[in-house]
Amino acid sequence: MTPASAQTPSSAHPTRVAVLGAAGRMGAAACRAVEDADDLELVARIGRGDDLNAVAEAGAEVAIDLTVPSATADNVAWLIDHGIHAVVGTTGWSEESLEALRERLAGAEGVGVLIAPNFAIGAVLAMRFAEVAARYYDSAEIIEMHHENKLDAPSGTARHTAAAIARGRAAAGLGPVPDATEKDPDGARGAVVDGIHVHAVRQRGLVAHEVVQFGGVGEQFVLRHDSFDRISFMPGVLLGVREVASHPGLTVGLDGFMDLG
Amino acid sequence: MTPASAQTPSSAHPTRVAVLGAAGRMGAAACRAVEDADDLELVARIGRGDDLNAVAEAGAEVAIDLTVPSATADNVAWLIDHGIHAVVGTTGWSEESLEALRERLAGAEGVGVLIAPNFAIGAVLAMRFAEVAARYYDSAEIIEMHHENKLDAPSGTARHTAAAIARGRAAAGLGPVPDATEKDPDGARGAVVDGIHVHAVRQRGLVAHEVVQFGGVGEQFVLRHDSFDRISFMPGVLLGVREVASHPGLTVGLDGFMDLG
Amino acid sequence: MTPASAQTPSSAHPTRVAVLGAAGRMGAAACRAVEDADDLELVARIGRGDDLNAVAEAGAEVAIDLTVPSATADNVAWLIDHGIHAVVGTTGWSEESLEALRERLAGAEGVGVLIAPNFAIGAVLAMRFAEVAARYYDSAEIIEMHHENKLDAPSGTARHTAAAIARGRAAAGLGPVPDATEKDPDGARGAVVDGIHVHAVRQRGLVAHEVVQFGGVGEQFVLRHDSFDRISFMPGVLLGVREVASHPGLTVGLDGFMDLG
Amino acid sequence: MTPASAQTPSSAHPTRVAVLGAAGRMGAAACRAVEDADDLELVARIGRGDDLNAVAEAGAEVAIDLTVPSATADNVAWLIDHGIHAVVGTTGWSEESLEALRERLAGAEGVGVLIAPNFAIGAVLAMRFAEVAARYYDSAEIIEMHHENKLDAPSGTARHTAAAIARGRAAAGLGPVPDATEKDPDGARGAVVDGIHVHAVRQRGLVAHEVVQFGGVGEQFVLRHDSFDRISFMPGVLLGVREVASHPGLTVGLDGFMDLG
Repeated sequence: MTPASAQTPSSAHPTRVAVLGAAGRMGAAACRAVEDADDLELVARIGRGDDLNAVAEAGAEVAIDLTVPSATADNVAWLIDHGIHAVVGTTGWSEESLEALRERLAGAEGVGVLIAPNFAIGAVLAMRFAEVAARYYDSAEIIEMHHENKLDAPSGTARHTAAAIARGRAAAGLGPVPDATEKDPDGARGAVVDGIHVHAVRQRGLVAHEVVQFGGVGEQFVLRHDSFDRISFMPGVLLGVREVASHPGLTVGLDGFMDLG
Repeated sequence: MTPASAQTPSSAHPTRVAVLGAAGRMGAAACRAVEDADDLELVARIGRGDDLNAVAEAGAEVAIDLTVPSATADNVAWLIDHGIHAVVGTTGWSEESLEALRERLAGAEGVGVLIAPNFAIGAVLAMRFAEVAARYYDSAEIIEMHHENKLDAPSGTARHTAAAIARGRAAAGLGPVPDATEKDPDGARGAVVDGIHVHAVRQRGLVAHEVVQFGGVGEQFVLRHDSFDRISFMPGVLLGVREVASHPGLTVGLDGFMDLG
Repeated sequence: MTPASAQTPSSAHPTRVAVLGAAGRMGAAACRAVEDADDLELVARIGRGDDLNAVAEAGAEVAIDLTVPSATADNVAWLIDHGIHAVVGTTGWSEESLEALRERLAGAEGVGVLIAPNFAIGAVLAMRFAEVAARYYDSAEIIEMHHENKLDAPSGTARHTAAAIARGRAAAGLGPVPDATEKDPDGARGAVVDGIHVHAVRQRGLVAHEVVQFGGVGEQFVLRHDSFDRISFMPGVLLGVREVASHPGLTVGLDGFMDLG
Repeated sequence: MTPASAQTPSSAHPTRVAVLGAAGRMGAAACRAVEDADDLELVARIGRGDDLNAVAEAGAEVAIDLTVPSATADNVAWLIDHGIHAVVGTTGWSEESLEALRERLAGAEGVGVLIAPNFAIGAVLAMRFAEVAARYYDSAEIIEMHHENKLDAPSGTARHTAAAIARGRAAAGLGPVPDATEKDPDGARGAVVDGIHVHAVRQRGLVAHEVVQFGGVGEQFVLRHDSFDRISFMPGVLLGVREVASHPGLTVGLDGFMDLG
């Protein structure tokens, strides 16, 4: 396990990295992050319409795909066929497309692909810890908070966290959360996702925040993750780049590269 | 203004205090609080069915009424007629019963009565500060959190706080809070009270908690009040007892005795 | 009182505003903020070395001075002499220079000057509310949190807040905060400023945050202000611009223009 | 793994439990907790001076030792010799006394002993999660908060958490936390324990609280545990009682019985 911030020169030379979707906001941030890392070297920036052969010609060992759902599957197939490891942040992968990926990887020994819907290390930690803590508390509730321009509620991360809590409770044989509410005419108790109450706050000045609260007799346990800036995804991207070569085959979820034991 | 914790001996002798409803949980706590205060003396504990004349015979200067809605109006009338100041925590006072009180007080020079629906000083402060802060922020939202046995949601305090925020926003000419939510199939955005979103968390181990969040471009302002124990109401009760004699006539709300400027 | 966000067209035409120090980071942000406000018009951007006469020639009614301590006193004197209201964020004003300002203003009827060391409305609110709440709680403590590059600890805002709390406690006749600590070999109890314990956290990813905690038997009251971005000062600057004309003479501190009652 | 709250009848009959130190505050709470659990039966309450033979005569399968350091070693030796599992919350165990325990257990097949310095499940979770999260963040800092009567600062739990964070950072190859502080005349940066800054707040109304904050570029991750009441230790005690029979030999630390993977 090599965490994002560790400066472990894993080999004699810096790892050669290409960025696909380099002109987007995430792509541009990824280019800067790679350039700023001593153990990585940015060798190709690929935008929409650019020839992928430039990635191979530049000698890239790892490619970061931050393109769009309609392009990512073809990109990753091409990378596998050229023996280049892939770190993929693009969403929209179906179970079928993941299965096709696995088959293609079976014929490409040593090549690793990471598909990560969420590169925020803190969100990954919160989800994992929530599943563990859920086994030990009677009550569990989620409050997610975002900027006022977000269109949907609750957030996808909050839904995934609710599912993780539900798994933890089920593993521990816990029943429904205790709740005596008889009168709630205006819906103050919020959404119920997988049996867990989820509240969504929308507030100018915020970015993306999640609070998970657990309660037992006489105590409370809280997990909180605050994303103040898109740049907070970059340590997760770099973690993927540094680890993908030592994880051949397909990995789904950044936690597959993390040491959470 | 004499705050609850100040040990200001307001006169040569301790103030003589009676407690009505002394057998209830709040009443018992009030008896202990009066006994523990150097500047107060507990001279009468009145339970259901006891003769009120004992209050006068004990020479009480101030009476604390923590009885029930059906008894409190008669109690306070009797106290006024006997020239005894009253600090009243019992709820259920209608506008008519308050008006009757005012008339009776008009004929009882120097007698003071405080009717306080909430003796928690922190809740009073949060409400007042929320009304002021609301003038200066685009967004405002409330999260109240209580034990799992609470029957109604949201709490009365949260509803009053929402009303206070709405007053503050109106005074500042602010329109609706910004909120782009288009898709919220499960009601994660919570209740809307006076235009303010209110979320109710129910969690084992908690008692009574309120968080008020304000947001503007690039910043957040938060007010939070935590009641860990019923005993947290006692400083408010004692504040009332110490101040009521110097506020003749009727005062509604503990903030009438506080210096919030 | 016109809060920052209110769209109250105070007159038939937009107020004409000049920015001094327009090339600095704060100055550039102020220019954008003025341009984005419907009721204000940016008529002059003055950088180092530019001729101040451009301010008068552009017909500015209000000037925002965000220059440097060595220039600000001369700038403001010039503005007063030309009948232009001034909103000043530059620090370094001595009691003597403020007194000189008052004298000059005595001869300039109707001209208003605001000197504001802190334009963060939330910090101003936190300080005021802290002074009020301090009267009612036995314990009070401050935690300030900033980015890892801050050179001094604790922050100036935390020191001012400690002083405000000390004033509030003194007004209420409260003695020292209760603290039984006998053994603290490594200084975990932090700094003591005006009798109040102050803790400074330095953390990558943070900007500027202040938490003020009050405690009494069975309860807690918390004030929190988070500055996520320099832009959070702009509502305070605009509040100053909109109010300065109706406050002739010298005002020190943004709270002089706020309705905090 | 059977969490504290799960009602899993692990066998046909309730487990028979004795409490040693039953007259103390923790002991009395343990008696109540055992009585309230459907799957446990309280068969003996042993106070100071009582004969331990009553434990065997009552047919206890598990004994909870909440006595004093001078008595606990003899108690546990006696329990092992009588084939009774032990759950021990008494502190003061030296490495030598633990080694003696291991030797004695070697000759007592199937008997389990748990020595747990901290029965608060939330504190155990916070410590473990802190060690994991520490690998992924540049900054880490601890704020512990206790009632005003605590004699030492910082708390033992905070010291242990700092050590856990230091272990996590070392495992990830992270160097010192970033901190540019040059001027801190009053010690606002707090204690430094194993390279981690630790702040101690003392506040009336609080009980025992710990906040662990992690920071990276653009983000924050927070763990928080609040103990509002001594009773919050009981789920940990019951977890120990339910699990000790299936963990023969010596276990130190409640986390040895928890599923934290």
